[in-house]
Amino acid sequence: MSKVLRSEPLSDADAKWVGLRAIYWQDPTGKERKWECADRRTRKGDADAVAICAIVQRPSSEPHMLLVSQFRPPVNSSVIEMPAGLIDAGEEGEEGTRRAALRELKEETGYGTDKEGGKIDVKLVSTVMANDPGMTSSNMKLCVIRIDLADDAPEPVAEPDEGEFIERHLVPVHGLMNALLDFQKKGFAVDARLAHAAIGIELGLGRLGAENSKI
Amino acid sequence: MSKVLRSEPLSDADAKWVGLRAIYWQDPTGKERKWECADRRTRKGDADAVAICAIVQRPSSEPHMLLVSQFRPPVNSSVIEMPAGLIDAGEEGEEGTRRAALRELKEETGYGTDKEGGKIDVKLVSTVMANDPGMTSSNMKLCVIRIDLADDAPEPVAEPDEGEFIERHLVPVHGLMNALLDFQKKGFAVDARLAHAAIGIELGLGRLGAENSKI
Repeated sequence: MSKVLRSEPLSDADAKWVGLRAIYWQDPTGKERKWECADRRTRKGDADAVAICAIVQRPSSEPHMLLVSQFRPPVNSSVIEMPAGLIDAGEEGEEGTRRAALRELKEETGYGTDKEGGKIDVKLVSTVMANDPGMTSSNMKLCVIRIDLADDAPEPVAEPDEGEFIERHLVPVHGLMNALLDFQKKGFAVDARLAHAAIGIELGLGRLGAENSKI
Repeated sequence: MSKVLRSEPLSDADAKWVGLRAIYWQDPTGKERKWECADRRTRKGDADAVAICAIVQRPSSEPHMLLVSQFRPPVNSSVIEMPAGLIDAGEEGEEGTRRAALRELKEETGYGTDKEGGKIDVKLVSTVMANDPGMTSSNMKLCVIRIDLADDAPEPVAEPDEGEFIERHLVPVHGLMNALLDFQKKGFAVDARLAHAAIGIELGLGRLGAENSKI
């Protein structure tokens, strides 16, 4: 069972993966102000990370979203997230993002990029999005990927890196919100971006205050 | 015009708003590993921040989402986001989150909590969600709030804090994705959580690979 054993302050000079920065900026009135910011130190391309919104479709089932969970030391919990990973050197631009997404999807879930992994259709490659931009320069891109599998195709086999311990979960796309509430009841934490996608699905379905969308 | 003038390394000991931490954790095999993490130092309740998914409904219009933009020094850009802010002391639990959300909504946009601001219906108060949990302990809650206004009611007036320079934007809920793309063309950055809500709306509408949801 994963757990945090202890933690201690880390000096900016000793940190390899993250860092702190003081930013001096000019506000709209011309006044100079100071802001504190945390950065990732691993950026190699045009964004830190790529996440994959993977929609798995078998002919006789409703579409499912492919999620992962793993223990995240910063929050001392297993977290339900979309599959994701850091972008490697050489994975720039839209084509690079696509390659990074398919690489991470394969590693973390086994889905995609060959016959056993399903038929792949990349529906969307986003531009760069800001993660929590009041606190950090950390950013990401998102790929929406549809994966078609035969009804009788076996579940693909994941290929995790050393030190990665990742579980897969398939939940109905239109039941995402309830699925996340169930995961929380079981003790998982939920990634905020994934939860926002779930809220969006509810709004797209004309719920949660968007009922009049159907007029 | 807001802009970053310069930035410099910030030692953990000198930082007031953010900090770095080395976490020693035990992986599922029992092996001890180290992880680097950035924290907010301002947490006063059960989460760092609250965001508001505000759906504005006037009888003769389709529902609109109320968004804000402000210059964010960590990404050196104006960012389109849901209204949001740090949770104050005393704003614990579901009722506290609701108060924090209505307070921030009023400050940043002028909507809500009285006759001029519209009729308020809190549709959802989320539990805690993890922001980018591979890098940070930063977290948030989300309130979905429907606001009903008469067709001829004037736009409410915002009440920003000193040093806050916030613009409001109203976009059709079911057109959020295209609206975000338009904002990007105008030079705005987009918050990842908001963008995930937009992707969710598309999925809820049976687009982006979720077409078979309608069967």
